[in-house]
Amino acid sequence: MTVQENVRKPLDLLSDALGAEMEAVNALIRDRMASQHAPRIPEVTAHLIEAGGKRLRPMLTLAAARMLDYAGPYHIHLAATVEFIHTATLLHDDVVDESRQRRGRPTANLLWDNKSSVLVGDYLFARSFQLMVEPGNLRTLEILSNASATIAEGEVLQLTAAQDLATDESVYLQVVRGKTAALFSAATEVGGVIAGAPDDQVRALFDYGDALGISFQIVDDLLDYGGATETIGKNVGDDFRERKLTLPVIKAVAKASPDERAFWSRTIEAGDQREGDLEHALTLLARHGAMEAARRDALDHAARAKAALAVLPAHSIRDMLADLADFVVSRVA
Amino acid sequence: MTVQENVRKPLDLLSDALGAEMEAVNALIRDRMASQHAPRIPEVTAHLIEAGGKRLRPMLTLAAARMLDYAGPYHIHLAATVEFIHTATLLHDDVVDESRQRRGRPTANLLWDNKSSVLVGDYLFARSFQLMVEPGNLRTLEILSNASATIAEGEVLQLTAAQDLATDESVYLQVVRGKTAALFSAATEVGGVIAGAPDDQVRALFDYGDALGISFQIVDDLLDYGGATETIGKNVGDDFRERKLTLPVIKAVAKASPDERAFWSRTIEAGDQREGDLEHALTLLARHGAMEAARRDALDHAARAKAALAVLPAHSIRDMLADLADFVVSRVA
Repeated sequence: MTVQENVRKPLDLLSDALGAEMEAVNALIRDRMASQHAPRIPEVTAHLIEAGGKRLRPMLTLAAARMLDYAGPYHIHLAATVEFIHTATLLHDDVVDESRQRRGRPTANLLWDNKSSVLVGDYLFARSFQLMVEPGNLRTLEILSNASATIAEGEVLQLTAAQDLATDESVYLQVVRGKTAALFSAATEVGGVIAGAPDDQVRALFDYGDALGISFQIVDDLLDYGGATETIGKNVGDDFRERKLTLPVIKAVAKASPDERAFWSRTIEAGDQREGDLEHALTLLARHGAMEAARRDALDHAARAKAALAVLPAHSIRDMLADLADFVVSRVA
Repeated sequence: MTVQENVRKPLDLLSDALGAEMEAVNALIRDRMASQHAPRIPEVTAHLIEAGGKRLRPMLTLAAARMLDYAGPYHIHLAATVEFIHTATLLHDDVVDESRQRRGRPTANLLWDNKSSVLVGDYLFARSFQLMVEPGNLRTLEILSNASATIAEGEVLQLTAAQDLATDESVYLQVVRGKTAALFSAATEVGGVIAGAPDDQVRALFDYGDALGISFQIVDDLLDYGGATETIGKNVGDDFRERKLTLPVIKAVAKASPDERAFWSRTIEAGDQREGDLEHALTLLARHGAMEAARRDALDHAARAKAALAVLPAHSIRDMLADLADFVVSRVA
């Protein structure tokens, strides 16, 4: 952590400012995660709720609506919708990645089985669609259903692209927009739409979420290779061991000598990894300035997020959103 | 088959009557199953489209809309939505059941992998939600999003109930309403709603789809144990080998002696199956009249489906729907 622990983080400040509304979102989530008939559903969802999580995405919806003076009540439904989509995606991701841990706890696919994770994930998707219908607003329905399709498309694209050295930065961006940024940008955009904001402000909210989501994912990629400074919470090299082509590697592959290319092909494409390979990968990333170049991209996207806020009304929430963009990249600043 | 081959089947007659509209549905399905970015998606969806299928569910939507003189165009979107939900469910079902064949062809989870089936299924779910938003009709959105939640809930309930001898007929009905009847009843109901039908007719369409779906599933259960007469297309005993408590078994368990109960507990609950067990199961089903009782239930639901049609306007399509209810149970009549 490069920020000092005695400085309050932007997400905590947002949580304080939006506390009552976030409580309403949490109550709605608890209510709709229940099931009258299938006991396995509350078992799995209780596990997910207890695991906590930052509730970053629903907070973005609440923040956008508040900044634009929306009096409610439907930002609560939209924020809960966004969290349901996110949670359903996590359940299915853990099946696809065969993950055993999430947020320091065993995953649902480990505690129960893949079947339960697939079907309870489907249930949460369906619940998210019920929730997004309730505000009766067709434009927010379009935005959220489009985001769901973009997310799923990005996840499928990642299946084939992640282990293919032909994957370039434009394909990477496509995947990241799908798996991460689409839900961030939908979260902020629907907050503006439900508040009746003019088109330029809605567009700015989309751009903020899109840029924030992309910088968030690039930072995640960087931390997986140790980041720029000391790191927390992530094991260095997980992406390498899982043979995922992330931005630093894509940049190093683009500059690779034939020998280096053979190394990446063996370790990522063929999955033949040996003692010392991770260390060699880190050497190659350093040799080509790949970490530094990815870090600059993350900072550029964070700057783009902050710039997008300019057309939005001056508001304490707007300042917190600007700080949030800085905070996301502070982990690699 | 108990119907004669030279008599045209109700589904063929419906196909003829609704041919142009079904072509429009098929074109919309092909269009929306594509993906601009992820090549794995058209690979998997082309496999599904080639496998064909009866398109029974979208036909129900078209039939309801036509019978109530709807001039279009949104019954096409709703019918395609219903088929997308069905197809997404099949992809996930085959992962959950570890199926290797569907409609006589290898399943997607076998040809590609479980990951692709989970994520392409999610993509089709998301596409279904995009499609259902397009008509801009909030009531059809409620019906279809509620049906999606009921389907997922039924699937999860089946996970725990299917191998539990405590599962009684009311739990069975809950599962069947989820996994089969909810989409039938939503398909017919939205056809009526988009046509602007009065409440009593919409209710009748729901009841028809609900009853048709339940009789359809009970017949499926019966055929799995050989049906009442000769059968086609299904291997006798698949449900038994997969340890699924279906209606005939639930009825036999309810009347079981302690010894018989121990047999069901060993074979279904514990999954310890030996040579001759399927034959003994068939003997127990016969001893307690379980097949005959389940057959009567199927006929009762088919009769309920036909009775529901009474409040709908006289129409050649209405007659075909009545014949369809008879046809469904003709396989065990």
